[in-house]
Amino acid sequence: MYSFNNDYSEGAHPRILNALIETNVEQADGYGEDQYTLEAVELIQQKIGRSDVDIHFISGGTQTNLIAISAFLRPHEAVVAPFSGHILVHETGAIEATGHKIISMVGREGKLRPADIAETLERHTDEHMVKPRLVYISNSTEIGTIYNKDELIALSSFCREHQLILYLDGARLGSALTSSQNDLTLNDIANLVDAFYIGGTKNGALLGEALVICTDSLKEDFRYHIKQKGALLAKGRLLGIQFRELFSDELFFDLARHANQLAQKIQSALIEVGCSLLIHSPSNQVFPILPNQLIKELQKDYAFNVWERVDANHSVIRLVTSWATEEEVVDKFIEDFKGLSSK
Amino acid sequence: MYSFNNDYSEGAHPRILNALIETNVEQADGYGEDQYTLEAVELIQQKIGRSDVDIHFISGGTQTNLIAISAFLRPHEAVVAPFSGHILVHETGAIEATGHKIISMVGREGKLRPADIAETLERHTDEHMVKPRLVYISNSTEIGTIYNKDELIALSSFCREHQLILYLDGARLGSALTSSQNDLTLNDIANLVDAFYIGGTKNGALLGEALVICTDSLKEDFRYHIKQKGALLAKGRLLGIQFRELFSDELFFDLARHANQLAQKIQSALIEVGCSLLIHSPSNQVFPILPNQLIKELQKDYAFNVWERVDANHSVIRLVTSWATEEEVVDKFIEDFKGLSSK
Amino acid sequence: MYSFNNDYSEGAHPRILNALIETNVEQADGYGEDQYTLEAVELIQQKIGRSDVDIHFISGGTQTNLIAISAFLRPHEAVVAPFSGHILVHETGAIEATGHKIISMVGREGKLRPADIAETLERHTDEHMVKPRLVYISNSTEIGTIYNKDELIALSSFCREHQLILYLDGARLGSALTSSQNDLTLNDIANLVDAFYIGGTKNGALLGEALVICTDSLKEDFRYHIKQKGALLAKGRLLGIQFRELFSDELFFDLARHANQLAQKIQSALIEVGCSLLIHSPSNQVFPILPNQLIKELQKDYAFNVWERVDANHSVIRLVTSWATEEEVVDKFIEDFKGLSSK
Amino acid sequence: MYSFNNDYSEGAHPRILNALIETNVEQADGYGEDQYTLEAVELIQQKIGRSDVDIHFISGGTQTNLIAISAFLRPHEAVVAPFSGHILVHETGAIEATGHKIISMVGREGKLRPADIAETLERHTDEHMVKPRLVYISNSTEIGTIYNKDELIALSSFCREHQLILYLDGARLGSALTSSQNDLTLNDIANLVDAFYIGGTKNGALLGEALVICTDSLKEDFRYHIKQKGALLAKGRLLGIQFRELFSDELFFDLARHANQLAQKIQSALIEVGCSLLIHSPSNQVFPILPNQLIKELQKDYAFNVWERVDANHSVIRLVTSWATEEEVVDKFIEDFKGLSSK
Repeated sequence: MYSFNNDYSEGAHPRILNALIETNVEQADGYGEDQYTLEAVELIQQKIGRSDVDIHFISGGTQTNLIAISAFLRPHEAVVAPFSGHILVHETGAIEATGHKIISMVGREGKLRPADIAETLERHTDEHMVKPRLVYISNSTEIGTIYNKDELIALSSFCREHQLILYLDGARLGSALTSSQNDLTLNDIANLVDAFYIGGTKNGALLGEALVICTDSLKEDFRYHIKQKGALLAKGRLLGIQFRELFSDELFFDLARHANQLAQKIQSALIEVGCSLLIHSPSNQVFPILPNQLIKELQKDYAFNVWERVDANHSVIRLVTSWATEEEVVDKFIEDFKGLSSK
Repeated sequence: MYSFNNDYSEGAHPRILNALIETNVEQADGYGEDQYTLEAVELIQQKIGRSDVDIHFISGGTQTNLIAISAFLRPHEAVVAPFSGHILVHETGAIEATGHKIISMVGREGKLRPADIAETLERHTDEHMVKPRLVYISNSTEIGTIYNKDELIALSSFCREHQLILYLDGARLGSALTSSQNDLTLNDIANLVDAFYIGGTKNGALLGEALVICTDSLKEDFRYHIKQKGALLAKGRLLGIQFRELFSDELFFDLARHANQLAQKIQSALIEVGCSLLIHSPSNQVFPILPNQLIKELQKDYAFNVWERVDANHSVIRLVTSWATEEEVVDKFIEDFKGLSSK
Repeated sequence: MYSFNNDYSEGAHPRILNALIETNVEQADGYGEDQYTLEAVELIQQKIGRSDVDIHFISGGTQTNLIAISAFLRPHEAVVAPFSGHILVHETGAIEATGHKIISMVGREGKLRPADIAETLERHTDEHMVKPRLVYISNSTEIGTIYNKDELIALSSFCREHQLILYLDGARLGSALTSSQNDLTLNDIANLVDAFYIGGTKNGALLGEALVICTDSLKEDFRYHIKQKGALLAKGRLLGIQFRELFSDELFFDLARHANQLAQKIQSALIEVGCSLLIHSPSNQVFPILPNQLIKELQKDYAFNVWERVDANHSVIRLVTSWATEEEVVDKFIEDFKGLSSK
Repeated sequence: MYSFNNDYSEGAHPRILNALIETNVEQADGYGEDQYTLEAVELIQQKIGRSDVDIHFISGGTQTNLIAISAFLRPHEAVVAPFSGHILVHETGAIEATGHKIISMVGREGKLRPADIAETLERHTDEHMVKPRLVYISNSTEIGTIYNKDELIALSSFCREHQLILYLDGARLGSALTSSQNDLTLNDIANLVDAFYIGGTKNGALLGEALVICTDSLKEDFRYHIKQKGALLAKGRLLGIQFRELFSDELFFDLARHANQLAQKIQSALIEVGCSLLIHSPSNQVFPILPNQLIKELQKDYAFNVWERVDANHSVIRLVTSWATEEEVVDKFIEDFKGLSSK
């Protein structure tokens, strides 16, 4: 049984484990004030091309989202997110638990456009309603699509014009930035959004996301919020060492590119045999629409998520590749798939 | 410069790192539903001697405290804690941030007694005040003292009689249980309190605490609370593998005992040369009262926490040993200390 | 200018003001423990036909909703509500501010049916999502419709079968119960839902809602929640005296019936002249669809809410009558309307 | 039985009831946007001597405190209050329920001094602790004492120097300002604190407090917070009409002065017969220390609060006078007291 369930089924990239071993006996300050963390911050700042951004390492995506959003907002302010947004349905109401409503909207292919938000602003006119204040987007999105530069510029301009904070969930930012269709750089993102995070958990780390705060007014006292939410690891080095390794060269991007290439290989093969897709994904998640019977056959050898029902006989499945996926496994899957679907 | 600042200055015990390497390429389910975590749960249940307790692995102590306490209480219910309680002043108001007041009281040597709590219950009589509902204690305490069995039985009886939840913060439970003065077992603790946690971060793990819920009424839906607070790691295996290693034999206890022995060696040496103590500690934290001048001299070679001011010329310092502290370093420290204090 | 904006434009029914004057110099205990409040509770219990329900008087609807819902739910539990639910968009995220997500759904004519909720339960399967736990409905609804007995029985059965709390917002319960289409009694409601409130603010009181808790498990310590949210009035008598007056005879129902009759008179006249309606309302709110030009003309003499845009040339308006609306004013409005619409 | 329990035992001053009657049939906008409320705001601004302060009317003291404090603070910021502060023990953890810790300190005679706060600031040094940000004081205090101008200037200067918000709970501000020992004006207070409230509930209104926000940065979007906490009354006129009446001339001050004079008459009489006091109060609350036997005798004819135990045979009681207390009753009480205490 091989799993295409997600991109966090394995441990960490071997270089990360080696880095942990090499530094293991060194004493370091606690709570992210160690030398490894400081170095990781500098390396990421260099990759971004801006030394004025604040960077904090946090264990996971839900935690990063809830800490950032609750730190950025006043009690009456709300989040705007697309229906597919991870914070909306897959984080157990974590944002609401910090007191903030999420205003959801349809969006398009997992993405938000200025017009979607404009319509919400028009409906929220006074103090009987929450005040929309932060726009939440994901890149790549929860259905594998990515923002191109024009789209992000349009959103950014709109948000600045309307005093909205633009926040980007980058759980799979590596996959987005190394997609063959991508035209954004880390520097672009830092210049266009107010805060975003670079996901480590889904790109080769044991755990960890690097939250990047670009806008000065959002930076103050941020470590208080991390600590208050229980997210300031005593051995903060654990996060610093991993990100130092991922960004000491191109490792972070190489791992993501690898995942993308194998997902694209699968997607191309599926298209080739006439398989329909929920969406044409340019990143490491693929969403074919398959007959339920075929899904059952595949499940004998492969684990994957059955994403949603299409009709009585068909469903969408999600296949995810990772830094650790081997090409031979992908080739075998394609071969098996072709065999089964041609029956 | 050698640090006695805390027990989390180094990485992890080598056996833990090895376990991570050995399991690294195996695919595993996410969110703590992997085989390693299940095995860790069983191993700890065996050490506790009860298979009916629920065990959840959470990254750190503040996070464990805030998740457990907010899950256990209704909005109007409050926590009772001693002035020295970690949740009271060193967790950035994490408990209050979940909506619950902490009622603080003097206690004695970092510990609470039934009489302390009784006095609070008498003062909280109606709906104009919060309702005291959960008693928070630490073992070992924040100043190194430990509860003996009679003390814990007395507290437990009092709490049950008054419908109070008894919760034990075990960030340094290993140190408490392996203290030469200890007469409690894990089984005793599980039978006397409603929930407690076994600290990994301060006893050789990279990160991780094992929350043990003993009372049935507190168990329901607990994973929802972990997820909502952002603490359900995607790679939950990271916590499971570590605790599996710590409890596969006596490693957890051996590491704690090692730390205790070296702390006691320091404490005995200090007493021998006539040094006063804030408290006579039976665990891995030592609190000598030293002339400020001597503190300055020691700080040239050693890092440690200056705990509190005693008078114009004296302060308490805190020396903490860990699983990683080497006996030679301790011997050197004692020698240096004797040299400096005899000047 | 006459206002059909809402049912709280005037002060209070004269009998209520008289009751305040008559009792004014008597000393009374604070915080709702006065004799007037106790009498009001008994009178309402008699009207309900059950002496085992708990009744609490609270100043307003948003406050009642937020106190009840946050008291009833654990942190990971969520509310289910129709898109039109008042808590969803017109209470400034008050429920979310207490930490709870509201899961919204389309519903039908402002009402929820078991099938709507069933679909939500199917999608909320595990701890990565909130746990739907409380169903929020309004009667009359925000668009004037009412639940009949069969509908409420169906909802109640479904909720009990699925361990869901059924909560009814009765801001306009008087209007619902005195509608000519109503077949529910206060006793029915108390037997079918877990908690509901009887709105006073929109039915002749200066302020005040009577929250009725029918299910034992929701009653405990409820006054703590009222106080914690700042809603326990020092002069609780102010609420008790008003509800004592409203329920000392049929005043509460008479006032609501009066409002209904005048609204129905307006609605019938509008239908008669061929006016379309957003919905055929059986209560004290009427929702005609009018040409924008006609709306402008009407606005010269009448104030009312422009509810929503229908197309480039038409909008829905909302006309609300109250206990204080005079029949002559209604007749004049109908006459004016006919005059303007026949132009 | 006559009650000296508190200053909210009776209804409202007759002029207030008359004002409600006179305005009753007028239609008015909801939610505090009516003409009466606007006039009340202007009248209070005139009494304060500043037209640039924002004024909001809220039903009660606990509600005002929790709305203001939660609106003013970010999640990691905390309140500093004296042990006797009403928010600390008599508001059911309302502040903590909004997520904020209250750091308590001894104070002196119910008041805080700069030195008290300075000591707290020194102990709160980094992100492992909350950040003290708002100083809560009461005038008159919960034990009847008042701040003089020098004291308030000293506090104000200290707070401004340390970026602390100074908030004054004026539940009994009328009593403080009309005390014979007072040297503060409403204008002084508005200039020295960042926000305060003028209590109506304890000074002749049915309910209502006027929150005055003096500092610009605290004003933004404040009505959102009132609504979100359920405190925006539909019939906001109820509050506006009362405060319009209280501040249309000197009524507010006359009522408070009346209460003070009668309390002082009692206090003087008690001193005259050699009675000890918990504190020498210059306002409308008196705190004699009495033999328990005498207390029992008094309780046959008078209701009052037994404040605290002094020793096995003595307790402090609290006697409160109000705008409605009659001089004959006070004279009778003094006579009865002298009779009983001379036995």
